[in-house]
Amino acid sequence: MSEWPLGAGEGLRVGDIVEKLGGTLLGDSQRRVRGIAPLDRAGPADIAFLSQPGKRAWLETCKAGCVILPQDFEAEASRFAASILTPDPYLYYARLAQWFSALQGEDATPGVHATAVVDPAARVASTASVGACAVIERGAVVADGAVIGAGCYIGRNAVIGAATRLHPRAVVLHGCILGARCIVHAGAVIGSDGFGYARDEQGAGVKIPQTGAVVIGNDVEIGANTTIDRGALDDTRIGDGVKIDNQVQIGHNVEIGPHTALAGCVGVAGSARIGAYCFIGGSAGILGHLVIADHVTISAMSLVTRSISQPGRYAGVFPLDTQANWAENAAAVRQLGALRSRLRQLEKRQDKNIDKT
Amino acid sequence: MSEWPLGAGEGLRVGDIVEKLGGTLLGDSQRRVRGIAPLDRAGPADIAFLSQPGKRAWLETCKAGCVILPQDFEAEASRFAASILTPDPYLYYARLAQWFSALQGEDATPGVHATAVVDPAARVASTASVGACAVIERGAVVADGAVIGAGCYIGRNAVIGAATRLHPRAVVLHGCILGARCIVHAGAVIGSDGFGYARDEQGAGVKIPQTGAVVIGNDVEIGANTTIDRGALDDTRIGDGVKIDNQVQIGHNVEIGPHTALAGCVGVAGSARIGAYCFIGGSAGILGHLVIADHVTISAMSLVTRSISQPGRYAGVFPLDTQANWAENAAAVRQLGALRSRLRQLEKRQDKNIDKT
Amino acid sequence: MSEWPLGAGEGLRVGDIVEKLGGTLLGDSQRRVRGIAPLDRAGPADIAFLSQPGKRAWLETCKAGCVILPQDFEAEASRFAASILTPDPYLYYARLAQWFSALQGEDATPGVHATAVVDPAARVASTASVGACAVIERGAVVADGAVIGAGCYIGRNAVIGAATRLHPRAVVLHGCILGARCIVHAGAVIGSDGFGYARDEQGAGVKIPQTGAVVIGNDVEIGANTTIDRGALDDTRIGDGVKIDNQVQIGHNVEIGPHTALAGCVGVAGSARIGAYCFIGGSAGILGHLVIADHVTISAMSLVTRSISQPGRYAGVFPLDTQANWAENAAAVRQLGALRSRLRQLEKRQDKNIDKT
Repeated sequence: MSEWPLGAGEGLRVGDIVEKLGGTLLGDSQRRVRGIAPLDRAGPADIAFLSQPGKRAWLETCKAGCVILPQDFEAEASRFAASILTPDPYLYYARLAQWFSALQGEDATPGVHATAVVDPAARVASTASVGACAVIERGAVVADGAVIGAGCYIGRNAVIGAATRLHPRAVVLHGCILGARCIVHAGAVIGSDGFGYARDEQGAGVKIPQTGAVVIGNDVEIGANTTIDRGALDDTRIGDGVKIDNQVQIGHNVEIGPHTALAGCVGVAGSARIGAYCFIGGSAGILGHLVIADHVTISAMSLVTRSISQPGRYAGVFPLDTQANWAENAAAVRQLGALRSRLRQLEKRQDKNIDKT
Repeated sequence: MSEWPLGAGEGLRVGDIVEKLGGTLLGDSQRRVRGIAPLDRAGPADIAFLSQPGKRAWLETCKAGCVILPQDFEAEASRFAASILTPDPYLYYARLAQWFSALQGEDATPGVHATAVVDPAARVASTASVGACAVIERGAVVADGAVIGAGCYIGRNAVIGAATRLHPRAVVLHGCILGARCIVHAGAVIGSDGFGYARDEQGAGVKIPQTGAVVIGNDVEIGANTTIDRGALDDTRIGDGVKIDNQVQIGHNVEIGPHTALAGCVGVAGSARIGAYCFIGGSAGILGHLVIADHVTISAMSLVTRSISQPGRYAGVFPLDTQANWAENAAAVRQLGALRSRLRQLEKRQDKNIDKT
Repeated sequence: MSEWPLGAGEGLRVGDIVEKLGGTLLGDSQRRVRGIAPLDRAGPADIAFLSQPGKRAWLETCKAGCVILPQDFEAEASRFAASILTPDPYLYYARLAQWFSALQGEDATPGVHATAVVDPAARVASTASVGACAVIERGAVVADGAVIGAGCYIGRNAVIGAATRLHPRAVVLHGCILGARCIVHAGAVIGSDGFGYARDEQGAGVKIPQTGAVVIGNDVEIGANTTIDRGALDDTRIGDGVKIDNQVQIGHNVEIGPHTALAGCVGVAGSARIGAYCFIGGSAGILGHLVIADHVTISAMSLVTRSISQPGRYAGVFPLDTQANWAENAAAVRQLGALRSRLRQLEKRQDKNIDKT
């Protein structure tokens, strides 16, 4: 259940919001809002926002005390006690929500829980917080203001940057480095062995020790139960501001450029290099050793099988249909090479016929 | 190794089974069975069942003391000391197996393990069981008969319903609510942050605090390492009787109707609404904000890219073939728009030719 | 950050390496190497290797003290103080890296950590190591030299074979058996319930108790956050030498033959049987009850929908294209059955025309 509206406090004055976050204020600057709510659920003590033009009609019945609106919505604004015009209401909402969240946040108390197991040769900043049953090995560093959730595991010589937060049961294995202000969600595993084997003379796998690490920049978010493998010899590298959703798998020696986002269930095979500001849709896959340029968008469940040098949108997914239609079309796909040949044949014969006529 | 047959006890009398679970008893009602086994492995002390017509021939060599058979299998029944006829042997087996399981079950002892960390401001029912190294935060509620496995984490103000069982290392984050008789398997994470960002002026992600929760009905099962994100403002909602397999990812604000089942590795993007009694095949995907009607079946590894308003079966997957055939057909797929144009062209030209002749 | 080069010790003499691992030594057998590094990063104290012919040019600027080269690279070998010729440099590297790793390894100290919770009726070998906050239930067996990482859970009557290593937070549930020298990565869950329900008269799922176990051979590796379900009645079985990457999902009663490898994010549905020496590409899927022969390779993200009796390579994935081209081709795919009919029609009409001319 949403924790909005805030259970306590006076809330924020709309005038103060605009002073801090910008935008054009229309209406009553003294109006107070105590929480953020969707357009259809907001009440007089809430602030709402319109980010999708398709929801414009919702404004007519919206009961919010204040609304964040796109620049040219002055007419609609008049319905509300107060409103804020801004070029990007969604971004405005994000920043305001962070502010509310900070006000309301009950942050982890600094200190190490009595049941945590911290090696004497680990260094944990006095301003950091270590939860119940967490384990921190020899040589690990937990920097200022970092929060290590209950049951987390930090391997030897791993580094957790300042103000980085690990949710319960996250695992960061030996030697891996996380920058500042990262968020790692529950169950994520950073630094597991890459999937590397040679084949012996009988075809059995001979494990290649994975001796690289994972190096993660600042402001990176890593989803629940996501896994990022350590490199074989060199490191796996995740750039600043990268956002990774739940259950993503990143193979060894992958490099991901700054501010790229990967949606849930994506798989990236070993040694792939993904550029900056890319977006990889949910359940998509990227084969090993490929190079993907900056500003590339891959559609959900598409498989990237060759390198991409041009920015833009790419897709490759069989279109959904009723089972019956799909079965017919899929059968035809399996004959497609032959159909193409028959078409060529027809074209040739018709050319001849035309010559004859 | 299967724990069947039961190592102790007298087993169940076939007459008692039929009295409790129904069906038509043929043969010796005094016959006792001590466990359930597959047709090909069952011995005289076992009960077996036939649910797939294709296995009818297996009956001829089956050594079970009793067999559960479809309604019209009276002839086959005569081979066995006892048998039970029922319209749905598989359902009958499920119920009988639950009975055996309850008889045999060694249930968790009520009480809190000495190494568990339970906040004084959490409420744990005296009939509930909390395993070793589990952590339960302030304000959380664990209801009657609930079982919290070793190493589980229950966040502040979360609610675990009566007789709900969390297997080891499951995580339920703050404010999330589970109904009664749910089962959550090891490593599942309920209530991780949704994947929500605005983009700032430079294209970097600005995190949107996820302030909703996850609300789960009664009799829901959630697979190992599955993740369910909390809502952004509103809640993510999972209906009664929903069954979710392992490694499924449910995005923020998703709603799933009662008795729908999702097979392993499915990904459901944010704000999708799935109806009741649906079946989503393994590794399938559902894009964000779509609405899917009741009684819809999606084939494995198919991507749902638009809303579905009609019940029925849907599919969309490239048919498997040898690598060589696939390569030829896939190349033709990439020219398919052009092939279609060439076909149209041929048709036009032929129409003209026919006019001429 | 890579831990190479070794921080201490004299390293290995090239002559000793060849004596132990074979190959033809060229150059200075007294040369010492202290670590393995990629061709482009290696220095005079490192040994490098060339496994991809495409990197032959890298040799010209490589500064390694010794290089492992393919058999016919005698000319290139002359550039280096020492070199080793071998038919399979990658396999040679794997074995050498294991040797270095063993030299350098700081292995877990035998003994049970003070915070681990070991049931008095479990048997843990005196040479085994049990990490902080690990939980081992009644009747479980941990054999000689096994390493149970911090926060692992071993259910009642489970068996962990000799020298098998479980990384932090791995879960092995009751009755499951792991052979010798296995590696289980962080967050993996072995023995969760299979996804099995009957449908009752109203269409609600009735859970089928999963009473089989998981039986795993020797030398098996299981990736981070991978899940392997226990069998319904019989066991799920994983053969010797099988290598499973991260986030793979194996359904109940699956059987996997020896030395097969499954890449990341693969899903295998219940009761599928995969042969020996297969390779299943990343994010591929295998439907339930199928049988796959030995020596079969499935391409990434392909769905196996029928049994495969012949060894070879198989694929089925929609080719990636620009979003615009994809949209055009995907639309045509949805009309493909109709296009095929139109082509047939054209052929018939043309045949008639030809008859007429």
